[in-house]
Amino acid sequence: MVIHELTLAQCRDVLGSSSHGRLGCARADQPYVVPFFFQYDSTGDCLYSFSAIGQKIDWMRDNPMVCVEVDEVIDQFNWTSVVAFGRYEEMGDSPQDEGARRRAHSFFQHRSAWWLPALGKATGREEPHASVVYRIALHKLTGRRAIQAK
Amino acid sequence: MVIHELTLAQCRDVLGSSSHGRLGCARADQPYVVPFFFQYDSTGDCLYSFSAIGQKIDWMRDNPMVCVEVDEVIDQFNWTSVVAFGRYEEMGDSPQDEGARRRAHSFFQHRSAWWLPALGKATGREEPHASVVYRIALHKLTGRRAIQAK
Repeated sequence: MVIHELTLAQCRDVLGSSSHGRLGCARADQPYVVPFFFQYDSTGDCLYSFSAIGQKIDWMRDNPMVCVEVDEVIDQFNWTSVVAFGRYEEMGDSPQDEGARRRAHSFFQHRSAWWLPALGKATGREEPHASVVYRIALHKLTGRRAIQAK
Repeated sequence: MVIHELTLAQCRDVLGSSSHGRLGCARADQPYVVPFFFQYDSTGDCLYSFSAIGQKIDWMRDNPMVCVEVDEVIDQFNWTSVVAFGRYEEMGDSPQDEGARRRAHSFFQHRSAWWLPALGKATGREEPHASVVYRIALHKLTGRRAIQAK
């Protein structure tokens, strides 16, 4: 098996063809990793997403430094992974967020169903959680691809 | 779509039937998430794995608080995810690590191929990295399963 480092363009291609990854945040040096669905915006080099308010959002509001991981695994010898450091940015109701909010909603309209899991009502909860729209502004992307040697 | 919380037994079942997940560590509140292959040991409630020495191992040696995420995604409406907090423990050469080291190697013999990616030689590197055997001692498991409503 040989592992290649991906170029920046290849990393962006992986993000652009994916909609599912993992989002890592941290509080007091305790990392927390959860699955999430996203839409990559190549023009701004950021990921748009949507979530019910909960532990993940609470932690990212306190510490906006995050890490995103996306992988495509065929088997142990053939896989691709991209890891990106980024910054959590919440889209509020303020006038200065209007452009980003519109951009996020245009993505959501293209994929009207993919963000529904973020609002899935957990059993046992009496009321659905409030929700937020956010983006992860990416500032460092690295990627690796493993290919089984012939 | 309805989301169910998994029981502890169901979380363990997911880990036991998986060999691939994501490992999150943190340094100075910067999370770092990477894919990894593992073997779950239900008797000790820990995950055994193997890695080349690099950023992930350096960070976990400095801060052993980690988070493991494992998911099975059929589509946006049908998925299972388990998130576990744990502690990084490296298997050294010391006599007190002998029992754990033997246990790790017994797992590796059962799945002789799965850990090879950890030692995959990246192109451009002149020498393969040194490697370590480690386990993640799990102390909190939570899980969720989404099922599309009929």
